[in-house]
Amino acid sequence: MTTQHLVKEIKRKKSFLCIGLDVDLEKIPQHLLEEEDPIFAFNKAIIDATHHLAVAYKPNLAFYEAYGINGLKALGKTIDYLNEKHPEIFTIADAKRGDIGNTSGMYAKAFFEDLNFDSVTVAPYMGRDSVEPFLEYKDKHTILLALTSNQGAFDFQTQKMDGEELYKKVLEVSKTWKNAQNLMYVVGATKAEFLADIRKIIPENFLLVPGVGAQGGSLEEVCKYGMNGNVGLLINSSRGVLYASKEKDFAEKAAEVAKDLQQQMAGFL
Amino acid sequence: MTTQHLVKEIKRKKSFLCIGLDVDLEKIPQHLLEEEDPIFAFNKAIIDATHHLAVAYKPNLAFYEAYGINGLKALGKTIDYLNEKHPEIFTIADAKRGDIGNTSGMYAKAFFEDLNFDSVTVAPYMGRDSVEPFLEYKDKHTILLALTSNQGAFDFQTQKMDGEELYKKVLEVSKTWKNAQNLMYVVGATKAEFLADIRKIIPENFLLVPGVGAQGGSLEEVCKYGMNGNVGLLINSSRGVLYASKEKDFAEKAAEVAKDLQQQMAGFL
Repeated sequence: MTTQHLVKEIKRKKSFLCIGLDVDLEKIPQHLLEEEDPIFAFNKAIIDATHHLAVAYKPNLAFYEAYGINGLKALGKTIDYLNEKHPEIFTIADAKRGDIGNTSGMYAKAFFEDLNFDSVTVAPYMGRDSVEPFLEYKDKHTILLALTSNQGAFDFQTQKMDGEELYKKVLEVSKTWKNAQNLMYVVGATKAEFLADIRKIIPENFLLVPGVGAQGGSLEEVCKYGMNGNVGLLINSSRGVLYASKEKDFAEKAAEVAKDLQQQMAGFL
Repeated sequence: MTTQHLVKEIKRKKSFLCIGLDVDLEKIPQHLLEEEDPIFAFNKAIIDATHHLAVAYKPNLAFYEAYGINGLKALGKTIDYLNEKHPEIFTIADAKRGDIGNTSGMYAKAFFEDLNFDSVTVAPYMGRDSVEPFLEYKDKHTILLALTSNQGAFDFQTQKMDGEELYKKVLEVSKTWKNAQNLMYVVGATKAEFLADIRKIIPENFLLVPGVGAQGGSLEEVCKYGMNGNVGLLINSSRGVLYASKEKDFAEKAAEVAKDLQQQMAGFL
């Protein structure tokens, strides 16, 4: 999917909501456990109830890998369902991969060819040749971790390197990589005050922003400091939407939370 | 597996060789493609031919994910085969994972419980709470990326942070994490001259050393600067062993290369 297409969808739906499909079998309505594939049944119900309110879905790979082959089959069915029923929706494999060049190329093949996601999250620690194999794919997007939403972000990311925080160095250096136009960045909503500085370095790129909701980030602040002329934001909510109810009305309640977020977003557009 | 057990095996086999099971269907002997599961058939043949020469095997997840569900089934069969036939061998899931706390916990579950590996490689960029969920597991090991073997290591890892290179900061900070005794570190053989400094910071921990062979690192230098009283080294070879021959004699030729490496290693013990 092109960035232009994503921007068009954001304007059409008046939403820049991304829903994180992080399925935990201990948290979903227990009647779903009787289904043949409870993970896919849950995802399908959430997608059916919210696809008009969200522009992106983001399964985090950890939640599927934790359930072994069955989890990975459910992931495959989920991305196929999204690609078939809602090809206008942007899909993100939240995988935080990264390895030496030829190995990153295998990961790129896994996510962009085998699973056919529009984008994948990638960790920057191993540098240029660990990221460029992902950037080679036309109309696919590589979402690089810059400043994450967790407490551990202060261990290294915000520490100064040659007088400048590591995450800023990551932003600046990554701009020099081949096909850097295919880069987006992860910036946590819990650190919204950092967004003004970040926009000075990367005014144009899309930001994937986790941490609104359960983790305590403010939508208003993220929009104030992070929005650009193309909107440039995908705000993720996972637990807040998925687990709005643990009863049979879970999809309906998820849609209510998503609708509330979409309406707040419409106010900022 | 305990570290003591690993050290005992190293001394018994006079080897600290780790074989990287990075199976590329374009590189394996083409007659194996007629097998029902060519990836597992290849791994089984390599393991059968080399298990007396190696103390560890390290499948890199990218090579299995690139083949979708079939690749992941082959990975499951490979780790089960190792655990059943050779429980004395140390197993490494080279996955380079890392995410916010509860999500890293799901990855830990995937690799330590579902697949039952002895260890997993983890990226440090997201800091303490992205790594500690892995460290909680008793007798399981978390192998943190410190200084990798690729060119991109110079982009961030060797850049100075408060007067000290990022990889040294990672070593030092990680020592303060809960259950840090379960840490090992990745240090590339292509940067063997850095090992003396590294051993000043972490004299005791095991190092997983990729980059000997195809990537150009020297075994002698790694031993000179990196070995400690418990050996403290696992030297990985992937392509050099796996693809020693593309003919029907591939396993025999792989064993010859492994034997040569083992004998060189014996000379350093």
